Amino acid sequence: MKVYFDNAATTAMDDRVIEAMLPFMKSHFGNPSSVHSHGREVRTAIEKSRKKVAELLNASPSEIFFTSGGTEADNTALVCGIESHAITHAITSPIEHHAVLHTLEVLAKKGMVKLSILDVNDRGEIDLNQLEELLKTNPKSLVSLMHANNEIGNLNDLDRIGALAKEHEAFFHSDTVQTMGHYVHDLKLLPVDAIVAGGHKFHGPKGSGFLFVRKDKKIHPFIHGGAQERNMRGGTENVIGIIGISKALELAYEDMAGHRTHIEKIKKHFIEKLVQELPGVEFNGLSADMDKSLYTVLNVSLPPSESNRGMLLFNLDLEGISASGGSACSSGATVGSHVLRALHHNPERDSVRFSFSRFNTLDEVDYTVRKLKELYAVEV
Amino acid sequence: MKVYFDNAATTAMDDRVIEAMLPFMKSHFGNPSSVHSHGREVRTAIEKSRKKVAELLNASPSEIFFTSGGTEADNTALVCGIESHAITHAITSPIEHHAVLHTLEVLAKKGMVKLSILDVNDRGEIDLNQLEELLKTNPKSLVSLMHANNEIGNLNDLDRIGALAKEHEAFFHSDTVQTMGHYVHDLKLLPVDAIVAGGHKFHGPKGSGFLFVRKDKKIHPFIHGGAQERNMRGGTENVIGIIGISKALELAYEDMAGHRTHIEKIKKHFIEKLVQELPGVEFNGLSADMDKSLYTVLNVSLPPSESNRGMLLFNLDLEGISASGGSACSSGATVGSHVLRALHHNPERDSVRFSFSRFNTLDEVDYTVRKLKELYAVEV
Ligand SMILES: Cc1ncc(COP(=O)(O)O)c(C=O)c1O
Ligand SMILES: Cc1ncc(COP(=O)(O)O)c(C=O)c1O
Repeated sequence: MKVYFDNAATTAMDDRVIEAMLPFMKSHFGNPSSVHSHGREVRTAIEKSRKKVAELLNASPSEIFFTSGGTEADNTALVCGIESHAITHAITSPIEHHAVLHTLEVLAKKGMVKLSILDVNDRGEIDLNQLEELLKTNPKSLVSLMHANNEIGNLNDLDRIGALAKEHEAFFHSDTVQTMGHYVHDLKLLPVDAIVAGGHKFHGPKGSGFLFVRKDKKIHPFIHGGAQERNMRGGTENVIGIIGISKALELAYEDMAGHRTHIEKIKKHFIEKLVQELPGVEFNGLSADMDKSLYTVLNVSLPPSESNRGMLLFNLDLEGISASGGSACSSGATVGSHVLRALHHNPERDSVRFSFSRFNTLDEVDYTVRKLKELYAVEV
Repeated sequence: MKVYFDNAATTAMDDRVIEAMLPFMKSHFGNPSSVHSHGREVRTAIEKSRKKVAELLNASPSEIFFTSGGTEADNTALVCGIESHAITHAITSPIEHHAVLHTLEVLAKKGMVKLSILDVNDRGEIDLNQLEELLKTNPKSLVSLMHANNEIGNLNDLDRIGALAKEHEAFFHSDTVQTMGHYVHDLKLLPVDAIVAGGHKFHGPKGSGFLFVRKDKKIHPFIHGGAQERNMRGGTENVIGIIGISKALELAYEDMAGHRTHIEKIKKHFIEKLVQELPGVEFNGLSADMDKSLYTVLNVSLPPSESNRGMLLFNLDLEGISASGGSACSSGATVGSHVLRALHHNPERDSVRFSFSRFNTLDEVDYTVRKLKELYAVEV
């Protein structure tokens, strides 16, 4: 049996997304910046895609900018948000994705901002009082706190964080890569200034992404060149990427409730089975809390075991099960997870992130738990 | 008849490129950073692509970094070349692509470099003596001069520019977007520190590109995030883009001489026909000089004409002919061309860039000249 439980790392493309992209590989090849018919048909398709994304998120098309992925979108929001709004102080948490953490660290090193990193408790929860204190004492702040953590699934309360940011006139960026296409984002209601997406996290193509920047918080471009993306991003557009990510988002919204129900069933079953079959199993962060974590992510901490120590992912892979030991985006499990470190996770225990999509089945869960049981049978 | 003469703006994808990409849309969807089998098969394909590109260019795989296009590659080389090598002075020309010009202008505005812009004569030629003077008086310089101009086709002598840069220990970046895949680049011989490519200029996908940076001139990343691209570019890789651009480059090298012969025949025929049929026709820059300009580009200046003034591209479009009035990458003809302005091109005359690929035919040239003749028949 082949089981793909690494959907937080990337998802399989939906066939309907591929279908939508194909004409733009074959016949519709014009440069969207060209004024002739070859160009215009492609320009029209791009602007339709932008409109579609904007409609789904209840935003204006002029607030949506296509990028090469979530990482570029995060970099753009942070670097250009800070430069364009004369920000002098940035607040983030130690369990953000490296696209946020490394970017802010580099800006801090260059002396462009002072950087404050919030404390997290051993479940990965931040303290909103600490955030408020920092906002009070630091005017001209930027807050970057993710919607959901990609490793442990913890959901942040964007409404409360956004309200605090607004109160103190801070720029609020949220890395929404893990929730886009899985949760509804209504940007008329959500108190954020910038959010981001990576198409490959919801059955779209890799190398596609977008950035939302609220109208009244305009920023300057990160990549300079031509007048593409309304002067916000130089470079000939990744046309198939744009067609793909907008189609993927459309499909995600079309049956979000259905997918959620299906995937929640899988996650619940997984938790129950593990607790039942594997004595000593624990769950990292809030990932076993169905209300406070991504329904797509379950981060499991397994009891110390000689035979699996540092080998668990490898052993699962041998059984045909693809899972992850943290963030694939940060290049695999070899360096260890900065998120689990921040949670003081016991390094004697092995952790594995299982993450789900609508293509997964309950059978796959049973198979995986059976294999885990076998792997841990010797010791438990 | 439908004629596509805008191949310097973008090219049609080769069917074999699409074929190579398809498996990575359908079955091979893993995240290359994942350590399991789904990830490893994709990682292997990316590294094979890198090796292929490196081999074709006679470089080392560790010197090739995939990007989202030529523009991002230019931005990376310039911003990070300047920061990583403590450059204080940049030299460029007024007819560079905006990916270079705007990027350097922004860096100059931020006070990060002093910017010197070389003079060009009315044919778009730079003066190497002026370059040498500037290099002599400014230690810690970066030189950014393109291999071939995208509008008028002028080829720069990279060997001579590179020798000067080397002599004065300057960092030499060349925007090779228009020559990559059309000319041989042997990076063991070519005295450059950084060059770039955009896949869609040689029948690869839009949104794909790469950057070559010579081993001894390492730079830090432009986009921060995960450890992708050997820590040189954060962000989940555009896998199909990487597969596509490397396949396109392979195909380009496979029959470069054949394509060149075919396209040169088209360009020569075009020049002859125009001179024969359209009195008062002129050619911008060096574009009519077969040795000193891109064989893919012909920039034509037409005599003043009431009925075509500012409408030439539109009139051609109505006849099914797609051509360009400058750089499509800078969003069409509406803003006018900074290149033609720098050459003091007579604004009474209309200019049009015809640019070719191996898919064009001599018949298309005859058709186009006939239509031009009709359009100008009233007045000439
Ligand atoms: C000379 C030159 N440099 C840079 C670019 C930008 O490359 P890309 O379109 O891949 O961003 C182009 C064309 O688009 C170009 O002609
Ligand atoms: C929370 C989070 N932010 C950012 C990224 C980066 O997005 P992308 O892979 O599209 O560059 C990822 C995953 O890759 C992620 O999980």
